[in-house]
Amino acid sequence: MPRADTEQREPPAGSAVGALRSLGLGPRLLTSPAALTAFGSDALTAFHQRPEAVVLAETEQEVIDTVRLCHREGIPFVARGSGTSLSGGSVPVAGGIVIALNRLDRVLALDPDARTAVLQPGIINLDVSRAAAPHGLAYAPDPSSQSVCSLGGNVAFNSGGAHCLKHGMTSNHVLGVKAVLPDGEVVHLGSDSVEPIGPDWMGLFCGSEGLFGIALQITVRLIGVAESTRTALAVYETLESAGEAVARIVGAGMLPVAMEIMDALAIEAAEASVKPGYPKGAALLIVELEGEREEVGADAARLDELLRASGATQITSTEDPDERALIWQGRKSAFSAVGWLAPDYIVQDGVVPRTRLSEALARIGRMSAEAGIRVANVFHAGDGNLHPLILFDGSEDGAVVRAEELAADILRLCVELGGSITGEHGVAVEKRAFLSLMFSDDDLALMRRLRHAVDPAALANPGKMLEPAPAPA
Amino acid sequence: MPRADTEQREPPAGSAVGALRSLGLGPRLLTSPAALTAFGSDALTAFHQRPEAVVLAETEQEVIDTVRLCHREGIPFVARGSGTSLSGGSVPVAGGIVIALNRLDRVLALDPDARTAVLQPGIINLDVSRAAAPHGLAYAPDPSSQSVCSLGGNVAFNSGGAHCLKHGMTSNHVLGVKAVLPDGEVVHLGSDSVEPIGPDWMGLFCGSEGLFGIALQITVRLIGVAESTRTALAVYETLESAGEAVARIVGAGMLPVAMEIMDALAIEAAEASVKPGYPKGAALLIVELEGEREEVGADAARLDELLRASGATQITSTEDPDERALIWQGRKSAFSAVGWLAPDYIVQDGVVPRTRLSEALARIGRMSAEAGIRVANVFHAGDGNLHPLILFDGSEDGAVVRAEELAADILRLCVELGGSITGEHGVAVEKRAFLSLMFSDDDLALMRRLRHAVDPAALANPGKMLEPAPAPA
Repeated sequence: MPRADTEQREPPAGSAVGALRSLGLGPRLLTSPAALTAFGSDALTAFHQRPEAVVLAETEQEVIDTVRLCHREGIPFVARGSGTSLSGGSVPVAGGIVIALNRLDRVLALDPDARTAVLQPGIINLDVSRAAAPHGLAYAPDPSSQSVCSLGGNVAFNSGGAHCLKHGMTSNHVLGVKAVLPDGEVVHLGSDSVEPIGPDWMGLFCGSEGLFGIALQITVRLIGVAESTRTALAVYETLESAGEAVARIVGAGMLPVAMEIMDALAIEAAEASVKPGYPKGAALLIVELEGEREEVGADAARLDELLRASGATQITSTEDPDERALIWQGRKSAFSAVGWLAPDYIVQDGVVPRTRLSEALARIGRMSAEAGIRVANVFHAGDGNLHPLILFDGSEDGAVVRAEELAADILRLCVELGGSITGEHGVAVEKRAFLSLMFSDDDLALMRRLRHAVDPAALANPGKMLEPAPAPA
Repeated sequence: MPRADTEQREPPAGSAVGALRSLGLGPRLLTSPAALTAFGSDALTAFHQRPEAVVLAETEQEVIDTVRLCHREGIPFVARGSGTSLSGGSVPVAGGIVIALNRLDRVLALDPDARTAVLQPGIINLDVSRAAAPHGLAYAPDPSSQSVCSLGGNVAFNSGGAHCLKHGMTSNHVLGVKAVLPDGEVVHLGSDSVEPIGPDWMGLFCGSEGLFGIALQITVRLIGVAESTRTALAVYETLESAGEAVARIVGAGMLPVAMEIMDALAIEAAEASVKPGYPKGAALLIVELEGEREEVGADAARLDELLRASGATQITSTEDPDERALIWQGRKSAFSAVGWLAPDYIVQDGVVPRTRLSEALARIGRMSAEAGIRVANVFHAGDGNLHPLILFDGSEDGAVVRAEELAADILRLCVELGGSITGEHGVAVEKRAFLSLMFSDDDLALMRRLRHAVDPAALANPGKMLEPAPAPA
């Protein structure tokens, strides 16, 4: 099957910029090197490629026209919202362009009775919940970057978040998408019905990392804001005992809305930056309960017992919105906060079965010690989604390579334990080489056949996920 | 794009039977006309086509070998479990064969801690819950045919059931599938992880009505059996008021595990057959609650208030397993029970938004009166999934055609109200002509491109879903 080897892709004959001028975008067609450089990387700064041009689209039709032009002229393109991808998902290829969707940020419809909203792809995740709040509703998936990341990217990467333990990932909340395919056709996938017809075409689009086209309108399900929310903080003397507490809570049949663990290094980082006032300890477990007031009260009592039985040395819990916000601010800022502890870091993203969490943490601790590289652990413990933060100093000789080797070893460990190479950050550029740890050649061949059926010329976000990683230099 | 027009398909050159003999199946290769006739129809008896042969597979390898042979020889095939499809999903095409999977009916693994089971496709739906019961677990999706239908068919049609209101359809409970593709490649789709990688490939297979290959192993999620289950029966003087009660219950934020409505004619049919002892009335609403004992107690009191406020003239409720079983037996046998009221009937399957249920029921009532055709209504009210049973006498001149016209009008009504042409029975042969009511040409073209990518020769269950219906004779 034909495959675009994007690393070697030459800029198309003729100029992409010249062709794009025909769209009449005026100053919304960026072409100056200074302007373009900002669009060459996303939150995973290890990868960079300056695009040929950037289209700052303001209407659906401009997106469609741009894609059609790219199809006609053979220009690779990547859609970009806020550029918060942690796997290089919005990095362009050489000769390619960026279609920026930030200006498509409106709420097109919000039906409080049906509990649905129709949104443009550039809307910020948190703004969806803000728009729904007057109706007592919210949009459930809450990536840590929710105050900046855009919904289109959430759909492309099937984003999760701390509260997805109970409510599920983005794919559980997106009912339908109007999308432009890589060949410029406009389709509607999914429906409002809870009982869809035929295969889950929508599910094929959600998580496709931009390979199957660009979402123009996204219909999401809204959920009722719970009557009561209580957040508990428990301190543990070892990371493993915090992990065991999670298994115990799940084993007792409880379904908290979130269960997060931070280790000593992550706590230190959070305290150094946003100062959430966390108690000191080897590990911190955050458990959030929500529901009707009585139910949460009963669950909180049960939770307290379980936390004590699992060896927590200190437990606090609160329903106060400000106190809760501070707890979460510490947790959600943990990635960037480690910047206070080391000049550079790699955020890793892997999954282990919940039942093997303690084992995984112990082994990561040993691997860190053996490699002599500090690893801060922050993770969605409820669903076994680990986020080891590997700290290093890029100015030291070979430090990047050693950090990357440790990151790769952690991923192999995840797969060995029956887990996965990515929980929510996606494959994109970063994890391509690891896909074969999880999928057979036949599995990957099927995926590539389906991708080829949608985008035979491989113009939509090429170089990502399903394109084999280049051989090491 | 090439498309197999199965209606005109000639039997392949050479004999399918001759080629199949090379598999060495002995008496498990059925070829006698008498044996084959039974495999020519499923539960929608309007469609019939005798296959060339039937393979009674006993092992995964036999299924794979048969598919590979079909691929090599260009023989169309359809997989069949119990043949309970209500849309002609397991009807073969002329020159095609049937691969019967009933003997692949084992539980391959059951992990009570992880709450998962790995199953063969021919296992009966109810047998999955039976196998899980000793561990306090169950398999949630429960089609009315659950005592006979097989899991492979449930996956192919993304089956629902009365209890899917709370727990979701089959696709919400299938974690992974090992499948043989139409070209004989064997792939693994999905994973145990709640955070999948990339697009939902599994979701593409689930609901594909056999077009994307045959499931060999199915990994499902099991759920804990609730501590307490209570079933309430409420009687209403009009069908519309029962519909309004449903809207009221949902509006109050309750999430019962099931909400079913039966109208007077359906009640009469159930009483004539399984005699569940339903109270007399114009409409019966069944609401089932499950959860922890205290929670169900509190919800039951709230439900009682809501039912009274919506005009119920009589309310009974029970936690007794035998009494509950009888209530459900009446409901689940309603389709076949209408056989007591008329020589023939068409089961229709459509969806309307829950908020427009009353309106839909009123209009179906008027359409029934105008056409002079009795319609019994039995439906999953909680998710707006209607099952009008259109009664007729096939021996009367033109009666079938008039019944089919009314059925089609009801589907158009569903779409007009913002719903769907099928809730759970699927498209298969029956609904092909209605797909264009819901999908644009571009939408359908995309679906066909994806199907073509998986099965270029259109050998896997041809003539279904995505193949245009033949023009009327």
